[in-house]
Amino acid sequence: MIVEMVNTGSELMLGRVLNSHQQWLCRRLSDLGYVVTRQIAVPDMAPEIELAVRDSLSRADLVLTTGGLGPTTDDLTREVIARLLSRALREDAEILAQIQAFFAGRNRPMPEQARVQALVPEGASVLPNPHGTAPGLVLHVNPNPFRNGGKESWLILLPGPGRELRPMFTDSVVPFLLRALPLSDSFVCRTLRTTGIAESIVQERIEGSLRELVLSGLDVGYCARPGQVDVRLAARGDDAESRVDAADAAVRAQLGSDIFGTGDENLEEVVVHLLAARKKTLALAESCTGGCIAHQLTNVSGASAVFRAGWVTYSNDAKQKFLGVRAETLDRHGAVSEAVAREMADGARHLGEADYAIAVTGIAGPTGGTPAKPTGTVFIAVASPKGTQVREMHNTWDRLTFKEVTARQALNQLRRLLHGPP
Amino acid sequence: MIVEMVNTGSELMLGRVLNSHQQWLCRRLSDLGYVVTRQIAVPDMAPEIELAVRDSLSRADLVLTTGGLGPTTDDLTREVIARLLSRALREDAEILAQIQAFFAGRNRPMPEQARVQALVPEGASVLPNPHGTAPGLVLHVNPNPFRNGGKESWLILLPGPGRELRPMFTDSVVPFLLRALPLSDSFVCRTLRTTGIAESIVQERIEGSLRELVLSGLDVGYCARPGQVDVRLAARGDDAESRVDAADAAVRAQLGSDIFGTGDENLEEVVVHLLAARKKTLALAESCTGGCIAHQLTNVSGASAVFRAGWVTYSNDAKQKFLGVRAETLDRHGAVSEAVAREMADGARHLGEADYAIAVTGIAGPTGGTPAKPTGTVFIAVASPKGTQVREMHNTWDRLTFKEVTARQALNQLRRLLHGPP
Repeated sequence: MIVEMVNTGSELMLGRVLNSHQQWLCRRLSDLGYVVTRQIAVPDMAPEIELAVRDSLSRADLVLTTGGLGPTTDDLTREVIARLLSRALREDAEILAQIQAFFAGRNRPMPEQARVQALVPEGASVLPNPHGTAPGLVLHVNPNPFRNGGKESWLILLPGPGRELRPMFTDSVVPFLLRALPLSDSFVCRTLRTTGIAESIVQERIEGSLRELVLSGLDVGYCARPGQVDVRLAARGDDAESRVDAADAAVRAQLGSDIFGTGDENLEEVVVHLLAARKKTLALAESCTGGCIAHQLTNVSGASAVFRAGWVTYSNDAKQKFLGVRAETLDRHGAVSEAVAREMADGARHLGEADYAIAVTGIAGPTGGTPAKPTGTVFIAVASPKGTQVREMHNTWDRLTFKEVTARQALNQLRRLLHGPP
Repeated sequence: MIVEMVNTGSELMLGRVLNSHQQWLCRRLSDLGYVVTRQIAVPDMAPEIELAVRDSLSRADLVLTTGGLGPTTDDLTREVIARLLSRALREDAEILAQIQAFFAGRNRPMPEQARVQALVPEGASVLPNPHGTAPGLVLHVNPNPFRNGGKESWLILLPGPGRELRPMFTDSVVPFLLRALPLSDSFVCRTLRTTGIAESIVQERIEGSLRELVLSGLDVGYCARPGQVDVRLAARGDDAESRVDAADAAVRAQLGSDIFGTGDENLEEVVVHLLAARKKTLALAESCTGGCIAHQLTNVSGASAVFRAGWVTYSNDAKQKFLGVRAETLDRHGAVSEAVAREMADGARHLGEADYAIAVTGIAGPTGGTPAKPTGTVFIAVASPKGTQVREMHNTWDRLTFKEVTARQALNQLRRLLHGPP
């Protein structure tokens, strides 16, 4: 199966936006066994889009495009492809009604040019877009005039905005692919997610016990980002499931509780679900992470059942006034210290009337470091019914990565306390 | 000038890593006026790399490749391109000495396979790599066997690791381009960033006054994400600067203070800088945004000078206990109400001893909505020395987008209060 992707957008070519769709779609597709063999980005210009789509159709069984379905004059994909394939564009009454409803639901008048999004090339199927106005489109190009022997291809047009593209892919494109373009081989792919250990250490710990499975065709991949390493286990063929199961067991035997989740589960979800299952509550006191932990936790639907209260206390004043940190402790140890982290966590747990509390105090940088406490120094405290545990970390990253890595470490410290049966 | 880029890497195609080189290089190139017209990513496989480079050479004056110059078995670019152009590979004594010095300087033995990086295709110029072992290469393809009439092209091979590629581009590629491939036209590109208005409305308001400039060759682009629309104005030629200036003035006349910044400035930076310039401080009381506003603000270096304290108060209890919201107000109006937003903001401003306070209370969803107050309903209050202003918004997005859009609106409401000379 040959799969290609065409991303349209002048902003991509000018380097104004990052092509995160490419990674996201390639990841989802490869997890299903559809590996993209070529990805092309072109500006919002009709000749460029036409040439790229035509080239891809000359090679691929499946071509996905992203972008260019919206209402503005630089949205050209729908029209270019209809012309390339000599298909008439017809206004679809149902889509038009949905677009009208979308604006009505937001108490906004529908701009006249929004109407163009209801145009559908002849013979195309429509993928609903509950998060926006431009639906996705699926075209069966059969015979395919650009391919040797007219061999058929499928062409899927997806909208540009990520909040529209992602649910559309998951809810509509995946079921379509499994139905219309099933893979001849069965394919199993599983991801185990770890936090707190470096990529080279993860690899060192597991590669020995995976060696035989790899020789028999298991594919092992690593994906590292700050504070998290994913291990991807994939196999093709009739016994794919049992080989991935064996690899899964071997990895778990080596990494144990360093694995926090599987697939797309993220650490904040795991923590919220562990707390909810135990009917326990959490409070947060953040200094250098500045609300990052609260933001991540409250991204999880259901967080309100476990999250009691959070404080963002940058200044010494605020640490004293709102969390009850003692002036003496600040004077003697400084704001970035084990003692202050401990008092922040104890204060947040007590005032928030929570079972657990996380507190973080450190130096995010780029300024504020000293020789004794360089930029990146951070103390993470977790208060629990059994006492308060503080760890010192040195996270020498840029400011944003520092906040995210520190948030991972703090949530992981709580996860380890909650680990095991409720 | 036609410019294309080929990124090699199987991990790109599997969606395991983000193609940040593409954005970085496209941005630098376009700022110099070399706009990339096509970008292609292919896996680390010889036939795919060969086909992509050959295709690009058939169209482009300048082709840049990234990746595949290292010492491992999946590094194929150098060899594939030498073969494609029928150029012999010769070991360069100077490069070999540099590679040996690189390992000696790290007290590590040089692996035998590292030697392959000293191979140079006949006629190529070498770009030094002070941050790694694989040098970059520049090939003048003249005559170009893949292009109509044999028209010449330039081919530049860059290493994959960002810490090697970026300085090599800045220190060696840019001077080379300016010398060997000077642009006949000057090029000017400017971005104006707006918030609070939909993409189609932005376009509707400005397209009339830009029409003549567009007819004379001005390029206008829109980039929309939730809560933000960027307008990009670009022109080429001797009068590029004055045409972009004229377009800039025309857009500002129409959009006025809906424009919050230019270039890469983001809203949280603008707000932190406005507060800092006025020596004013801010407190935050967040319910449904759950720390998102605090997180965004504290991403800005220097936020500590203006940010007094933040509260994340999901529950009614916490709103009363920590912010002084009255039980009576909660009983009479409910937690999601103008009155509660006002009392949260007033409480945060008073307790945080700040000049301004933002408070947000609403229903992020997916659960918690009622017929009277559906999911997406949110009240945003900004307290200032002159009083407290509350706005009701309906942000019907998924949970994460809801939080981000609401944070944009809240920061923008404060920005509008701070707007004008200090």
